[in-house]
Amino acid sequence: MDIETKTLSVTTGPIAGSRKIYSPAPGHPDIAVPFREVALHASAQEPPLQLYDTSGAYTDPAEPLSLEDGLPKLRNAWLSKRGLRPYASRPVKPEDNGHASAETLVAPCPAAHDVRMGDETALVTQYEFARAGIVTEEMIYAAHRENLGRAAAHEQAQARLADGESFGAALPEFVTPEFVCAEIAAGRAILPANINHPELEPMVIGRNFLVKINANIGNSAVTSDAAAEVEKLVWAIRWGADTVMDLSTGRNIHNIRSWILRNSPVPIGTVPLYQALEKVGGDAAKLDWALYRDTLIEQAEQGVDYFTIHAGVRLAHVPLTARRVTGIVSRGGSIMAQWCLAHHRESFLYEHFDEICDIMRRYDVSFSLGDGLRPGANADANDAAQFAELETLGELTRRAWAKGCQVMVEGPGHVPMHKIKANMEKQLATCGEAPFYTLGPLTTDIAPGYDHITSAIGAAMIGWFGTAMLCYVTPKEHLGLPNREDVKTGVITYKLAAHAANLAKGHPAARLRDDAISRARFEFRWEDQFNLGLDPDTARAFHDETLPKEAHKSAHFCSMCGPKFCSMKISQDIRAEAQRQEGMEAMRAAFTEAGGALYVTAKDKD
Amino acid sequence: MDIETKTLSVTTGPIAGSRKIYSPAPGHPDIAVPFREVALHASAQEPPLQLYDTSGAYTDPAEPLSLEDGLPKLRNAWLSKRGLRPYASRPVKPEDNGHASAETLVAPCPAAHDVRMGDETALVTQYEFARAGIVTEEMIYAAHRENLGRAAAHEQAQARLADGESFGAALPEFVTPEFVCAEIAAGRAILPANINHPELEPMVIGRNFLVKINANIGNSAVTSDAAAEVEKLVWAIRWGADTVMDLSTGRNIHNIRSWILRNSPVPIGTVPLYQALEKVGGDAAKLDWALYRDTLIEQAEQGVDYFTIHAGVRLAHVPLTARRVTGIVSRGGSIMAQWCLAHHRESFLYEHFDEICDIMRRYDVSFSLGDGLRPGANADANDAAQFAELETLGELTRRAWAKGCQVMVEGPGHVPMHKIKANMEKQLATCGEAPFYTLGPLTTDIAPGYDHITSAIGAAMIGWFGTAMLCYVTPKEHLGLPNREDVKTGVITYKLAAHAANLAKGHPAARLRDDAISRARFEFRWEDQFNLGLDPDTARAFHDETLPKEAHKSAHFCSMCGPKFCSMKISQDIRAEAQRQEGMEAMRAAFTEAGGALYVTAKDKD
Repeated sequence: MDIETKTLSVTTGPIAGSRKIYSPAPGHPDIAVPFREVALHASAQEPPLQLYDTSGAYTDPAEPLSLEDGLPKLRNAWLSKRGLRPYASRPVKPEDNGHASAETLVAPCPAAHDVRMGDETALVTQYEFARAGIVTEEMIYAAHRENLGRAAAHEQAQARLADGESFGAALPEFVTPEFVCAEIAAGRAILPANINHPELEPMVIGRNFLVKINANIGNSAVTSDAAAEVEKLVWAIRWGADTVMDLSTGRNIHNIRSWILRNSPVPIGTVPLYQALEKVGGDAAKLDWALYRDTLIEQAEQGVDYFTIHAGVRLAHVPLTARRVTGIVSRGGSIMAQWCLAHHRESFLYEHFDEICDIMRRYDVSFSLGDGLRPGANADANDAAQFAELETLGELTRRAWAKGCQVMVEGPGHVPMHKIKANMEKQLATCGEAPFYTLGPLTTDIAPGYDHITSAIGAAMIGWFGTAMLCYVTPKEHLGLPNREDVKTGVITYKLAAHAANLAKGHPAARLRDDAISRARFEFRWEDQFNLGLDPDTARAFHDETLPKEAHKSAHFCSMCGPKFCSMKISQDIRAEAQRQEGMEAMRAAFTEAGGALYVTAKDKD
Repeated sequence: MDIETKTLSVTTGPIAGSRKIYSPAPGHPDIAVPFREVALHASAQEPPLQLYDTSGAYTDPAEPLSLEDGLPKLRNAWLSKRGLRPYASRPVKPEDNGHASAETLVAPCPAAHDVRMGDETALVTQYEFARAGIVTEEMIYAAHRENLGRAAAHEQAQARLADGESFGAALPEFVTPEFVCAEIAAGRAILPANINHPELEPMVIGRNFLVKINANIGNSAVTSDAAAEVEKLVWAIRWGADTVMDLSTGRNIHNIRSWILRNSPVPIGTVPLYQALEKVGGDAAKLDWALYRDTLIEQAEQGVDYFTIHAGVRLAHVPLTARRVTGIVSRGGSIMAQWCLAHHRESFLYEHFDEICDIMRRYDVSFSLGDGLRPGANADANDAAQFAELETLGELTRRAWAKGCQVMVEGPGHVPMHKIKANMEKQLATCGEAPFYTLGPLTTDIAPGYDHITSAIGAAMIGWFGTAMLCYVTPKEHLGLPNREDVKTGVITYKLAAHAANLAKGHPAARLRDDAISRARFEFRWEDQFNLGLDPDTARAFHDETLPKEAHKSAHFCSMCGPKFCSMKISQDIRAEAQRQEGMEAMRAAFTEAGGALYVTAKDKD
């Protein structure tokens, strides 16, 4: 089930128990949005359940795939109508790949894309379109994705399903393209979509939409290679990553990125500072605006959808970190702090922020304003350094909006549970409700090897409070570079945290999947239980560890309790017995006569 | 490092990087409480960090161990002073071991213990002693355990460390035996300690103490055996389980339990109903009071420290579950519901509750009032069935107290985040602040294979809100019987959830460990970072996956970012550079002159 090419192979084929479908957006037969559909056992007498799908063409066996050709350029037709004409792009320079020698140079992806740029007169960014009240094809696409399940939920029992506490988020009953447009115009959502990333399947990030997750990939100077990175991308989106950040350092950054972008259906984010630092041999003091500016253009032309820009780390903030237990723990933050101190100057990112905005607007690269001073330990959470930077990020958010750019804001980090809510409230107030994008946060410092879990606790909570996207943490956090299994574990862990947040916020359709899997569980439809889960393969493998036979897939028990002690089996027997005895309704009447006060009207299961 | 006996072998030896110490309780040189001490690298210039230790003699290489002899009977001297005289115990009956044939019968543990019982005139339970204002040796022991680190925290910066939100919990600055006594007298805490479990290392469970965790072990009719169960006990406490429940079903229950009890330093809980059901061949309708009563006595004489008693599942509650998505999901709850319906009678557990109290008081078996109607799906959370049972549990709590018994109350289950707090509040109000003991709760239904994580989110939150003990969930939940690795994963996951709760509540000493590991992280003391973590072995293995050499244990980077991009390395360089430039203090002055307003007084790291 794998595509093999001369250079790379990636995982393909459907996720177990599901198939890819394409659903046209209402009124737009040409805009077909992919979903994944899980067919249930005939005994369920339920229609298939459709699920949000980030996995791209890789899970569609009907799709011809070639990593050399890249994915279909879905957005080309839309973009060419917008007067964004191709132009001769910046030539690739030896330093873009870290001066890799001929033997060590990774060949670039041969797939060509027209490099486009918007001029001053055209509307370029989704924010500019939204402010002008123009609904783009990307907004239509993203709206249809987000609207999944709402009609079904509404039919079933919408009021009962949506009983969450949203902390001021306003989740609509139905998501229309106009709603997406209005949210982007208000700055409350972004639709990261570089005009040089035509392969993108558009999606939207904001507090009034599904909570999203990001997976980081990227080689480091110590380990990893190109093939592994592209496979990590495909692997991460297979399990549900909504966006992927390529945090590569070392050699071949440019060429590896070309493979990633041409083959990515999800928005790709980067930290341009990492590549800039490579270009100056790792000496932060040698960084300058010209080099950084050139790197922004290089990456924007390749199609990177959002940039982490650490412009909030100002010279004045650095001394605030002096008493911290773990100082500065953001790579970008520490690089900029070092630069500021080395030159005794204000950050060149802060000083050139307006020019950065002008460049990013031309390609519609969204801002992810970096939290370079996020806390790296419980002891440092919510301190003066962190909040001073957040104030600056609020200022920069408004400046970027004024320039027509889309903006989200990054957040911590290591934060104990009782200090999480203040982060969300302060970000909303300071940054004008721009989407918050947090790393975890990790709620304890003491679990190296399990930091996906310590951070999932914080992530679920801050997602509930209003964070729009959660950056995953893998089991290798603090210890080493994640491998393939770690990436999957991180993604699944964050999918469940995001889902927990959607449920708690009262997302009108989120519980459809929980209810479907719970019914499957109660009715011993083991295959349905596996397939409706976030990771059908692992669920099946765990079940089969003790009861491997096919016959056990319809057994009315599992090895946890065995047949005599299965509460669900007994519960079913009780229900059957009650029905035999002329139904629960009659029993209720009998019990009420006997003086029971606690009875409610008991009907058969819905 | 393993003890091998004729029948069983278990894991022994110290946890990596730590050694066992025994600390006498203040003023009680004969009461020596075990802790585990982690020595730090000389460069840290810090004293060793002491940690709470549940692992018993198995991690003490100096301790002679024999599973046939059982653990030392620490409490014998205390108990014999209390006028609790040995008596001739109930003879073992064939049905106690499920009528196992001679070939399949597991031999009982040969270790003898004097079987004791309290009469009507003596004080027997810790609750009775506490109500009489008498501080027991067990209270002194538990107080010294709980007090760990408080003096050190107080010296360092107690006010800064303890900044949590406790939701009405009153964590004392120091824990004295008198405080433990007062909490037990108020019913806010229990000290589960059957007088027939002299091997116990006493501990206390309550909202104003460290949050505890329980691990379930036990064979089922489908799989498992005696050797595996005793090893699971030793393995679970090695990683931090505060109590262990033996949920065995099938044959040989009695004899396997004898091995577990004689070799357990932690309180052991059971659900006597399971064994009772085995005695009637698995037919719930055949259960009766006489048989159940006999089983209570059988297990109380063996030394079980707490019983889950599902007396809250009343006949009147059963119809309330009829419209649920997953019906009744507690084994005990479903068995009792089936019994009630089969006989059209009120639960015999409810009807004989006073007699149950009388039996449990005689041995000081604590109640764990079972939540037989806990929700098994998000859809069923906080419903009428669940809360009707909770009202009954409140009534039973008071009745048990009146009889002199110790009581905790079990809680859910599957509960989305926004419905968790109501559970805690309702339990506190309904059950007079008796300790709450919850299973998770699981915050989504859609992650089979990852339910330790979905439930850790809920567990951390409800622990913060006031739950005293968290029952672990393993990755196998809903799928099968956990194996050794699953038990470890479940325990570590719950240790971190409990720790997150302690931090958020503002436990005055909880952050000592976080701060110690964060300092180790910042100073690249890799060995210290591993050893201070919850699972040194896994942390080390993950690190070594990419950087296995010994030299890398002092490297100022890891494979995640590599040397050039290590923020902590850069942060250290910044600090060194700042100190070179006549210190941060001078820089502050310079910056302030230049008009910076955000500076604070920056001193060298504490």
